[in-house]
Amino acid sequence: MPDLSTITMPIAEELKHFNLLLDKELVAESQPLCGIFQHVMNAKGKQLRPVLVLLSAKLFGEINDKTYRAALFVEMVHTATLIHDDVIDESGLRRGKPSINAHWGNRTAVLSGDYLLSKAVLNLSENGDYDILSEVLRTACLMSEGELMQSDKAAHFDINEADYFNIITRKTATLMEVCCKTGAFSVDADRQQISALAQFGKFLGIAFQIRDDIFDFQPSPELGKPAGNDIKEHNFTLPLIYCLDHCNEIQRKQLLADLRQVNEKSDLLPSIVERVISSGGIEYAESRMQEFINLALQQLDGFPQNDALFALRDLAHYCVERKV
Amino acid sequence: MPDLSTITMPIAEELKHFNLLLDKELVAESQPLCGIFQHVMNAKGKQLRPVLVLLSAKLFGEINDKTYRAALFVEMVHTATLIHDDVIDESGLRRGKPSINAHWGNRTAVLSGDYLLSKAVLNLSENGDYDILSEVLRTACLMSEGELMQSDKAAHFDINEADYFNIITRKTATLMEVCCKTGAFSVDADRQQISALAQFGKFLGIAFQIRDDIFDFQPSPELGKPAGNDIKEHNFTLPLIYCLDHCNEIQRKQLLADLRQVNEKSDLLPSIVERVISSGGIEYAESRMQEFINLALQQLDGFPQNDALFALRDLAHYCVERKV
Repeated sequence: MPDLSTITMPIAEELKHFNLLLDKELVAESQPLCGIFQHVMNAKGKQLRPVLVLLSAKLFGEINDKTYRAALFVEMVHTATLIHDDVIDESGLRRGKPSINAHWGNRTAVLSGDYLLSKAVLNLSENGDYDILSEVLRTACLMSEGELMQSDKAAHFDINEADYFNIITRKTATLMEVCCKTGAFSVDADRQQISALAQFGKFLGIAFQIRDDIFDFQPSPELGKPAGNDIKEHNFTLPLIYCLDHCNEIQRKQLLADLRQVNEKSDLLPSIVERVISSGGIEYAESRMQEFINLALQQLDGFPQNDALFALRDLAHYCVERKV
Repeated sequence: MPDLSTITMPIAEELKHFNLLLDKELVAESQPLCGIFQHVMNAKGKQLRPVLVLLSAKLFGEINDKTYRAALFVEMVHTATLIHDDVIDESGLRRGKPSINAHWGNRTAVLSGDYLLSKAVLNLSENGDYDILSEVLRTACLMSEGELMQSDKAAHFDINEADYFNIITRKTATLMEVCCKTGAFSVDADRQQISALAQFGKFLGIAFQIRDDIFDFQPSPELGKPAGNDIKEHNFTLPLIYCLDHCNEIQRKQLLADLRQVNEKSDLLPSIVERVISSGGIEYAESRMQEFINLALQQLDGFPQNDALFALRDLAHYCVERKV
């Protein structure tokens, strides 16, 4: 399995240029924004979303200024979302460094997320990228709605498989969809191509999120044991939903009762994880994930056989095989 | 002093129509958004911002669909800001009802604010109001930056009068400025008119914020004593800054030391308020507020002498004379 930097070789130069542009974008005159941006730049993630934008453009043409603006946009929005997520989840760490809320407090974290969102949208608007703008704003609404539905379901202990796919499509897959769509869009790909690539992004996003949700049941490199964050937050993810759907009524009632108490009685966590694993929930989630990756790969049929296409394929495999 | 409903008589019909449109806008298919929107609609505020948009349009022409869209935008953004503010300040009440965070939790509150912001911007974008869009996004950046500067200054106990005016201009006055600007804009007022009215909104916003900041030192209707929230949050507002600038070095050091400890020793609060009052800080803030209202009113010179103009004048007086 090639690593991410090998996969992105065909856009290595462009990715470097993208990061220069991002550096320029994340400059503020006043404190605390200066410090926060510095902090963000020092803890960059996989940059999967801008990579998707750049590859989607490269597939059909030459990466141009509009492509870069779309890539900047998705990375800034993604960063803002993570900053807000850390406030919501009261996380102290992000990518091995103190989170913005841990370092500057909740108030500053919420506001700097807001600033980043406004700045991202402003960039598109000032450059007249109105086509991209409406697209991404619709996505932003869907994303918040997905997260809100997840909270609601978590609060009511009531979620089935259809809800789960509905939620992860909104909260994760729509942004990946928009990455591919706007990338292809920026180089004037034709409608059919854009639509197929958008589907690729959506299915990839669903598989990506299932992979993330499976991680929660597997020993984490830092902890040496499963983190179980979703269980603690009452997020019903696919392995757990499968387990609940495939045990008898007595087991089901017990599992739900234990889930309700897991935050008071921490020794319940390993036992819940164990029950999910022995129900076959992980294997089931993995098979669904594979299904979506296959669907994603099918969308690429008939596209130009160039380096960008091969990279997108590798990226799809990477998303489900990755270890972090 | 006429009350707000008397002042807004010239746009009574339009305000009714605006509220119908707002009802339609705040509709969601899924929970918890449905419930949250219902809650928001049941606790409407003064709607000062949409009123400014509507009056600014009416001053120069007939209120049209674009005017309404601008009015909806500012009200939705303002509502989103208040929802986020309540999370940040951990407020349990908003307009006499439980705040969104108190009712649904922080996670849902942050996300529903995000949703509302995206929805507000999407509306403008989908209707092709790109001119308004860039304007308001620039404002949104300034607003978050202003709030961030305030946090930073609060954390460092370091703020002077120039900082104060810089901060309140960004966090409050720019949105009022944009209300007047976009209102005038929507009816194709000429450049000079738009610019003068924008200035009116800015000065009005500064005076409005000084008025709010003075309230914090005066007995509140609910508490029967000064709330002192700014003091507790280490927000250095104009009366306090004046007091710090006009006492001797020993008094200044004592006041700063007491401010640092006010959250641990709650009996310090009345004494701090007392020191600010006897320094003449309130009178000074009132005189500066009056100065800005006069500047605001001057901007209206030479405009058409119609009911909208008289209403804008009354509104300016209302902003500084209001009791809540």
